[in-house]
This record gives sequence, C-alpha cells and structure tokens, in this order.
Amino acid sequence: MATGRRSRIESLSNPLVKRMRLLREKRHRRAEGLFLAEGLRIATEAREAGVLPQWLFLANEGAGHPLAQTLVEATLAGGGEVIDTAPAILSKLSGKDNAQTIVGIYAEPKTALADLDRSAAPIWLVAERLRDPGNLGTMLRTGDAVGAGGLILLDESTDPYAVEAVRASMGAIFTQRLVQARWEEFLPWLRSGPGQLVATWLGDDTRDYQAVRYAAPTFILIGNESQGMPEAYAAAADVRVKMPMMGKADSLNAAVAAAVMAYEVLNQRRPS
Amino acid sequence: MATGRRSRIESLSNPLVKRMRLLREKRHRRAEGLFLAEGLRIATEAREAGVLPQWLFLANEGAGHPLAQTLVEATLAGGGEVIDTAPAILSKLSGKDNAQTIVGIYAEPKTALADLDRSAAPIWLVAERLRDPGNLGTMLRTGDAVGAGGLILLDESTDPYAVEAVRASMGAIFTQRLVQARWEEFLPWLRSGPGQLVATWLGDDTRDYQAVRYAAPTFILIGNESQGMPEAYAAAADVRVKMPMMGKADSLNAAVAAAVMAYEVLNQRRPS
Repeated sequence: MATGRRSRIESLSNPLVKRMRLLREKRHRRAEGLFLAEGLRIATEAREAGVLPQWLFLANEGAGHPLAQTLVEATLAGGGEVIDTAPAILSKLSGKDNAQTIVGIYAEPKTALADLDRSAAPIWLVAERLRDPGNLGTMLRTGDAVGAGGLILLDESTDPYAVEAVRASMGAIFTQRLVQARWEEFLPWLRSGPGQLVATWLGDDTRDYQAVRYAAPTFILIGNESQGMPEAYAAAADVRVKMPMMGKADSLNAAVAAAVMAYEVLNQRRPS
Repeated sequence: MATGRRSRIESLSNPLVKRMRLLREKRHRRAEGLFLAEGLRIATEAREAGVLPQWLFLANEGAGHPLAQTLVEATLAGGGEVIDTAPAILSKLSGKDNAQTIVGIYAEPKTALADLDRSAAPIWLVAERLRDPGNLGTMLRTGDAVGAGGLILLDESTDPYAVEAVRASMGAIFTQRLVQARWEEFLPWLRSGPGQLVATWLGDDTRDYQAVRYAAPTFILIGNESQGMPEAYAAAADVRVKMPMMGKADSLNAAVAAAVMAYEVLNQRRPS
C-alpha cells in the first residue's frame, strides 16, 4: 500500500496553499479535478464512505480529536499527504473567518449516467438548472436521509463541488452519486430501463402529490428555482404532481419541494 | 388620504441613497425600524397583503410593467415617496450586481406574542436560534404554503429582515406573522391557551412523525442548525418526533425539517 507523508506549512505564501486556495473558483476545480471540504465531521463521513483526501490540512492537530487521529492515519495509509498548519491558513483555504480545524482536498469523482445502477436505490433526485449551491447541497443531504441513490443535475447547474454546496451537503457529497448530464442524454438513458419520472409542476395536467402511487425507482424532477422546468420536460414525465399550496405563493423552495416529494415517496413504501 | 411625492435621484452620493444602503446592516435596520425588499414580485405580494413601502425606488420606471404602475400609484396614495433612479443605484442599495428594477423600503412590523391570534391558523412554525437567513426566509415561504400563521423566532436568531432572508421568503415576510421572543416568554404564553408543541428531536423518547395525530393549533419547533435545541425545550414539548433517516446523516436541514413536518400536519387535515 502506498504510504503518504506528513509535513508542516507555516506560510500563507506557500505554493501549495496558494494553489489549494484557488479551488474556491470553479475553473480551478475543473482544471485540477479537485475540491475542498471543511470540517472533521464531513471528512469523517467521507472516510466512512471509503473516500480519503489527497491532502489533509490540520490546524492544532485537528484539535486533538480521536477522529482526527483516525483520519490522519487513514489519509497516510491511503497515500495522501497530511499537513500540519496554522488556523490562519485554514481560514485562507476555506474563505471563512472561523475556520474548521480540518480541511481536506479530494478528487472530484467523475460519474456518468452509464455508471449508475438505478436499481441500487428506490429514489433518485433530478434537478434541472439548479442555481443555488445551498439548495444543491441540501438536496444531497435530503437524498442521503431518504435513502436516495444520488442526484442527477440536468443542463447548466451550479457547481456541486463549490464549497457552499459541499458544506450544505453535510457529507452527503461523499455518499450520494452525482451525475451531470444534458436532458437529451438523460431521457434516453432513463427510458432504457425501469424508472418512473415524476415532475413537480405548476402548470396544467397535474395530480396531487399524495394521490399518486410511486413506482421504484422513482426519479423526482425539480425545476429551476425561478423559472421551473421547460414544459417539454414536464410533458415527458410519467406523471406531473403538485403539493397543496394554501397561501399566496405558488411554489416552494426547490430543496424543500424535493424533500417534501421524497418523503412522500419514502413514506408510501415503509411499514406504517 | 395622505399623498406621497415623486422625485428623481441620479447620484450615488445622494444622502437618502447612502442612508438606505446602510439598511443592509442589522444595526441600521434596528435604528431606523426599516428594511429593504427587492423586486416587483415581492413588492406586489406586499401590496396585495396591504403593505406599502415608505420609499419605492424604480429603475427604468420599473421596466414599464403594469404591476409597477399599480405599485407606484398605491405607494403615492399611501403617502410614500416614489423615486425614479438608475440601475446602478438599485445595485448599490441591494448589494447585487444584477439588481431588480424595483427596491422598496418598508417599516419593520413589531409583533409580540400577545398580538398573535393563535386560533387564526392551524400551524405555527417555531425556530430556535436559527442561524441562516436563507433557512429563515425559506421557513416563511413554507409557512405561507402550508397555511401557517407565522414564524416565532426563539432566543438569538439571525435577523429576519436581512436582505437574504427577505429574498428567500419570496414575499412571505409580508404575509406571515413574525415574532421574536425568548423561550422564557414563549412557553408561558403557549400554555396560556390551546396549542400542541411538537419538537423535532434527535434524542430519546421520540415517535415517528407520521405516528402522531396532530392537534390544532400545532406549533412545530425546530432547533438550531448545528446543535439542535436544548434538551429542556424538547422535554417541555407535548411530543417529540423524528423523521425516518435512511442514510448516514442523523438530521435534515432545518428548513427542510420544518417543511416535511408542516406538510405532514397539513396532510393529516386535508381530505384525501
């Protein structure tokens, strides 16, 4: 097994610090194939899911937490580099004033639709042109909670590896599969196997979301935050559903809509 | 009826622009008793709820939208000031690059627990030490959707009148009642009338959230994003519930938890 090394960095102008700090920008994440995750909790979730960082930055030796020690050992055993450093450097990496005591740098997984085993999970979330990284991370977190297999991002969505998305996922970025695809690829893939496509839709021809019996695997399609999804996408779905709206507004937050739908699908299948 | 006036501001250094721009900071909002809401959609929701701005800033005459004209007339009739200005000034006010064509400045309502008519709605959301303005605004939006009466913020929460919270509320800041109170005030008030307090709780002595029959008015209590609520708060609730968690995580995003709970309460009461 490859064994990594342990080193110390004290300078904000260290070249690796400068390089890793650029990972806050999407184009650098793409160029490097790397992303940044903060915090012992998320890094531990990653480790438990079998994902180890290529670089692990620790301030104050991870505040001496036993899980930090486990993480250090696993990172070294996995061939990664452990770097002891100062809190100010972690703040610089994460862009947060109150930085965590741990920052991990991970390889971005590249998952294609063809890599997904759709039968591995009863629920899949699908989001179309998602704009808000907080919503994206929250959807991953909800996906984990409902036992979904992953999140499929259609068309031009916000970057799932942005630090805000990773943070909002609370570690689910490491446990949920994540695929980026165009609708023109997604629909043929979906129709090449079992799967019910359910669109949350504000237009006509909708059914109450509790009046539908969902079939596994259920693909829950959520549209763009401000515009919803194109009519053609809704029309291609097996069923269009809506949640009751008792007030003035006509829609829910995208991550909330995904969660309310996903819990309904889950609830229909669990023993009452 | 008081009639307002219409004026024009072209300079970024105009004293009113400088003063209104400071409303992005909480201490200035408190000192002025004012807050800022962007966009024709939210301002129209406010108008329909009977709330008019004290100042209405328009760039490009609100892009000529008929609803903007209605808003201008209502603002003037309500004694407010309508200010025609440039897009750059709206950007400066809202702190966003792509500013809306309308920014309204509104008086912060001061609502106390004693002002609430708890029987006016079957659901009330209660959040304890909420930290994230996006979560807060999303809870207001969800509250509107489920027919809740409002949101009660316990202890030290993030400011509901921050521009991010107002934006996330999608106008529900004007339709939901909003009360800030300490737990020590809230609990005696709650017990002075009808009301079932339901805590979403990760500890012991919980029931599945679908196994409980909820009684109106139902007060759904959601704890702090990272720490949850103090044990004493959960213990004082009439029932502690949890949602099924099928994955690695042990909790949902706070706004998601509020929504999943609120839809369950709503669903139990609507005809199937």
